[in-house]
Amino acid sequence: MSRQKLSLPTLYAENVLLEKDQVRILDRRVFPFSKEFVVCSDCEQVALAIEQMVTQSNGPFYAAGAGMVLAAREAEKATDPACRQALMEAAGARLVQTRPTNNNVATAVRQILAFAEEHAAGSGFAEACEKFVLEQWEARRGQYRAVGRYANSLIADGERILTHCWSEGALLETLIAAREDGKQIELLCTETRPYLQGARLTAHSVAEMGIDATVITDGMVAHAMASGRVGMLMTAADRVTMSGHVINKVGTLHAAIAARHFKLPYFATVMRPDAKAPDPSTVPIEERDGEESLHCLGIRTASPLAKGWYPAFDVTPPELVSGIITEHGIFPAAALSQTFPVQDR
Amino acid sequence: MSRQKLSLPTLYAENVLLEKDQVRILDRRVFPFSKEFVVCSDCEQVALAIEQMVTQSNGPFYAAGAGMVLAAREAEKATDPACRQALMEAAGARLVQTRPTNNNVATAVRQILAFAEEHAAGSGFAEACEKFVLEQWEARRGQYRAVGRYANSLIADGERILTHCWSEGALLETLIAAREDGKQIELLCTETRPYLQGARLTAHSVAEMGIDATVITDGMVAHAMASGRVGMLMTAADRVTMSGHVINKVGTLHAAIAARHFKLPYFATVMRPDAKAPDPSTVPIEERDGEESLHCLGIRTASPLAKGWYPAFDVTPPELVSGIITEHGIFPAAALSQTFPVQDR
Repeated sequence: MSRQKLSLPTLYAENVLLEKDQVRILDRRVFPFSKEFVVCSDCEQVALAIEQMVTQSNGPFYAAGAGMVLAAREAEKATDPACRQALMEAAGARLVQTRPTNNNVATAVRQILAFAEEHAAGSGFAEACEKFVLEQWEARRGQYRAVGRYANSLIADGERILTHCWSEGALLETLIAAREDGKQIELLCTETRPYLQGARLTAHSVAEMGIDATVITDGMVAHAMASGRVGMLMTAADRVTMSGHVINKVGTLHAAIAARHFKLPYFATVMRPDAKAPDPSTVPIEERDGEESLHCLGIRTASPLAKGWYPAFDVTPPELVSGIITEHGIFPAAALSQTFPVQDR
Repeated sequence: MSRQKLSLPTLYAENVLLEKDQVRILDRRVFPFSKEFVVCSDCEQVALAIEQMVTQSNGPFYAAGAGMVLAAREAEKATDPACRQALMEAAGARLVQTRPTNNNVATAVRQILAFAEEHAAGSGFAEACEKFVLEQWEARRGQYRAVGRYANSLIADGERILTHCWSEGALLETLIAAREDGKQIELLCTETRPYLQGARLTAHSVAEMGIDATVITDGMVAHAMASGRVGMLMTAADRVTMSGHVINKVGTLHAAIAARHFKLPYFATVMRPDAKAPDPSTVPIEERDGEESLHCLGIRTASPLAKGWYPAFDVTPPELVSGIITEHGIFPAAALSQTFPVQDR
């Protein structure tokens, strides 16, 4: 095994670009078929881009930070600190409004507003905000690195990992850590209908790193396991409750049940469980427009007479989860509340 | 409950049309978005149509019969009976070659060749073959009716049936029988990637019969069961071995594992188990071009860097099957060889 340095995939390296006069957001609606950026010259344009799903998953965390930097450059023109802060708060409120259920935007905005409040009186306000946001991004990368290092500790040389949907930084840092250790890995990616995050985002990013990425349809999971093509199942989690339930893209439960049937381990990655969610009953599960299940890339896939249903997430109970991989280590799902070191945020 | 008469769906009534100078095959690759027929003027064109997936599931049974009639019309031009039969055998061999896992073509061809051999010397050879094929089709409808009556005996009023892929006559006759008994039923159909048989063929045919058909993506099966939207799983089988293994469209195994997890019954319909297949090791499992998993309706769905894999069928072991519904009754999968009345074919 030889240590291998990897170049970062496009979705990681060129996700959101903070530039002198503008912000460029990689358009995930067309990527990887086309590499286009939506250019935003003010915070309102960033908010619109988030609303229009130009970026998703953890993308809005970075887009919101960049939007707040654009807002800070505008706010700096006002010399009155109270006025500056009022402008920043208005920009933050607008951004938070874009995706009410995505915690990432609210988290990014809350941290930046707290920083801005302390520094509103100073000179070089916008520059200080920009520096803060870049540190915020670096800190998040560090959290992903921590998750990735723990996940890597579970991966053997030659591992065949099945993943579902798009696990963003957690998966990429896992692969980076594994490859730096010289491990050979193969990824099997479910295409993840209806949005094809697996076929588009995961498979592309993994392959950009020089790792073998094979796409299967969502119904092939059990057969892939029965055929010996899978050594472990690993997915991200949109939310993990303190009861150890994994809430993630619909299909995760289906894959986890198959993994248990074939006695394969299933690990979920998440920065940390949600201390405010004791169990799944406290988490609102988004149900999206059923029409989305009747289309693929904008084209009708189902009979014009059919109805559609699109529950966007499902809930995998702790007894089907081998472990929750967090930035603080790997914890048993069924004993999460007793073992995870809960911290105030 | 009131008895209800149903009109036959398009896929049943206009599946393969045997005409004076040609055969027209309903093109399942575009149906139901467009109702088009592939016109075949000789047996080779029928073979190509089957290979090119113009029709699938049980469609090749009818297409093969129609192809053999075209061959008989050609063979009739030869007056030497041995020559006629040699031409018929060549046509049959070509047709059987088209789909190695699908027994339907082989069955249709074998029966027609036996008939042709007896009648090769007579006048009106092609007409006799045509009459035989039409009787063969009517006999098949009778077999589906028998399967449907047994399946209906398992269905309660208000039943919520989850089905995968497209079960053709067995499902349609089940629904006809259930509706004639005045039962209300709801169908949940997996879209069945990559070909979308469920979203297109099943959902459309079921809805044409006035029965509620809701389409879900293949990854939503477990969540639908967890949500109480499924009372039973019922699929067709491309092949059932005497050991009780169900070989069917990939995704069936995954659904059966989920059904077992949620303690829901899973029944497979098949005319009869394959007396010549003691277990799955004796059945060649078709693996199709992996590129097909990277496309949907001809459009690329996956990263250009991704590889694809398309195992077309999977094998569900008897311990996951509640029963095999055949034309002779319902049999326990795990004791099929002891209980099914095997007949010479």
